[in-house]
Amino acid sequence: MNFCDLAVSGVADLRPYVPGKPIEELQRQYGVRDVIKLASNENPLGPSKAALAAVALNSRELSRYPDGNGFTLKTALSEKFQLQAEQITLGNGSNDILEIIARCFVRPQDEVLFSEHAFAIYALVTQAIGATAVVTPALNFGHDLQAMLAAVTERTKLIFIANPNNPTGTFLSASDLYQFLQQLPSNVLVVLDEAYVEYNSEPSASFDWLAQFSNLIVTRTFSKAYGLAGLRVGFAVSDPVITDLLNRVRQPFNVNNLALAAAVASLGDEDYLIESRAVNTAGMQQFEQGFKQLGLEWIPSSGNFITVNVARSAADVYEALLQRGVIVRPIAAYGLPQHLRISIGLEAENARCLQALAEVLES
Amino acid sequence: MNFCDLAVSGVADLRPYVPGKPIEELQRQYGVRDVIKLASNENPLGPSKAALAAVALNSRELSRYPDGNGFTLKTALSEKFQLQAEQITLGNGSNDILEIIARCFVRPQDEVLFSEHAFAIYALVTQAIGATAVVTPALNFGHDLQAMLAAVTERTKLIFIANPNNPTGTFLSASDLYQFLQQLPSNVLVVLDEAYVEYNSEPSASFDWLAQFSNLIVTRTFSKAYGLAGLRVGFAVSDPVITDLLNRVRQPFNVNNLALAAAVASLGDEDYLIESRAVNTAGMQQFEQGFKQLGLEWIPSSGNFITVNVARSAADVYEALLQRGVIVRPIAAYGLPQHLRISIGLEAENARCLQALAEVLES
Repeated sequence: MNFCDLAVSGVADLRPYVPGKPIEELQRQYGVRDVIKLASNENPLGPSKAALAAVALNSRELSRYPDGNGFTLKTALSEKFQLQAEQITLGNGSNDILEIIARCFVRPQDEVLFSEHAFAIYALVTQAIGATAVVTPALNFGHDLQAMLAAVTERTKLIFIANPNNPTGTFLSASDLYQFLQQLPSNVLVVLDEAYVEYNSEPSASFDWLAQFSNLIVTRTFSKAYGLAGLRVGFAVSDPVITDLLNRVRQPFNVNNLALAAAVASLGDEDYLIESRAVNTAGMQQFEQGFKQLGLEWIPSSGNFITVNVARSAADVYEALLQRGVIVRPIAAYGLPQHLRISIGLEAENARCLQALAEVLES
Repeated sequence: MNFCDLAVSGVADLRPYVPGKPIEELQRQYGVRDVIKLASNENPLGPSKAALAAVALNSRELSRYPDGNGFTLKTALSEKFQLQAEQITLGNGSNDILEIIARCFVRPQDEVLFSEHAFAIYALVTQAIGATAVVTPALNFGHDLQAMLAAVTERTKLIFIANPNNPTGTFLSASDLYQFLQQLPSNVLVVLDEAYVEYNSEPSASFDWLAQFSNLIVTRTFSKAYGLAGLRVGFAVSDPVITDLLNRVRQPFNVNNLALAAAVASLGDEDYLIESRAVNTAGMQQFEQGFKQLGLEWIPSSGNFITVNVARSAADVYEALLQRGVIVRPIAAYGLPQHLRISIGLEAENARCLQALAEVLES
């Protein structure tokens, strides 16, 4: 029996998402002991003290199922962002949310639209359903909104837009996005993936647009600026009718109870968010100056990572950096075989990465 | 725009899983302070000390993504159960696994077969895909394997069997299941959901059957006897070809890093498992004696819960128990409107539940 033949169309051809190499894996495989990881856009400060305290406090309750309705976290999100709980869907990371949205609305005969160089999960959730992915060429490594509008057909069900974009760090202005939404047919759903929005210098207006554009779904995560990638929690904000549909597809206990508690605590820890942004701004300048000295071009980034053109096979540079105990992210799968995406770390980590990069490029 | 019309067939009609009422929700809604919850088949001992230590140790790493390959947990599972890592799929609870299996193999034109009174998630994952659920009548509140064999058609893609079954606690013997597998066409997948297997007095032979039946997928969870319902971790064991397909559909970081660490620790804590079983056996006897005194019939259970016929509207009894601060589980949605499912708790919890039940039934 060939079980691949039994699988749903698209599944057998799925190439799973390739995560950043875990530190322990590099240590096991290469025997390198002193490893830094700047590969997965993680917050280099570690979790906030408030989140750690919430984890410790709630650990005694681990044998209890989490609150499937996420009452406390939805209340905290509603207060912080002036939302209604009926607009919020909680996810096991925003990856979960993106998948739930696709499974809720996209049929095999539908088209899903996204940009070249956009987040890999958009293609994966589309293919797992067997729907058609329509990919518009990038403009300056980012989204070409006019090209995306022009690519909308009667079959277009869903558009994914990442702002800032991962892995290129490009940013779309509020006015450009607003005009895009105005011009889009109201029966086409738009997912605005704001996983990195907290790092951008200007606050996002996206929640304010929800009243006007009921086809808009905004997604955010606690994995980046809030420092909780390991616990898995993200959320979507949308029209209550859409939210109700998403919550029917959502697994009843998709968010674990420590994630719920830590997210509430992180939301309230404004100092941690300010420090996270400050560390990121300083580290971004450190990398930009380093790249300048190395004569390398980079893509200006609004995220917590920077994507640099190493002007040769990035796969080779990636391997040589691994041997020096430095994990970064090759992004050939995103159509950028000469670029590396480097997450902004602490000052010493950034310096070590730049030093290793200099050595590798000289050799 | 009516977004329900835009949703995938089946989604708009989904009625989400109704979880056991969380303790905090009862406190908020009813103003009852001293609450016991015997509603979600949770381990009344709380998490094992080993799991708590693992959570504390790994909390500093919360800003790092979990290992998407779950190397350490798969290694521990392989050693404990003599499996290969290539046979294991990790899930965000076994709910996640059940959904992944369905999404991997079931198309809208396929049939999914399960029994009356079986776990509600089987129907939900089937409907979310828009496939056809075929439900065979129960035999003595459990699975009628002959009826299930007779219900197999050319369209049958997947069969769900829960052993022990939730919410009725019935158990199928190894010989009956083995004969069932022998008679089944090899292109029909069978999910053997062993969420409660650790509570049964005889060890399961299911892992041994995998070499003979490549269409068999065994699922287990850390939510019950291992006491980690709040952290969300379960696993499937199957033929490596099937495992590879499941891992393509699986979200790359579906299991959080504290769940991975706590699961490894719990697997190694044999004393906790022994105590969990002992508490369950004693509590089961306590309930059986209590029901006998109350003149109530119950379904003999191989799980960590017992389902009792209250011989009147169970919804009314459930409400009256809530007002006394006792949360149990009404199961009218499972076709059992006069039954309540009661999870086995600690001795004092069981006594309080029986006392409250006596008061309610007398009034």
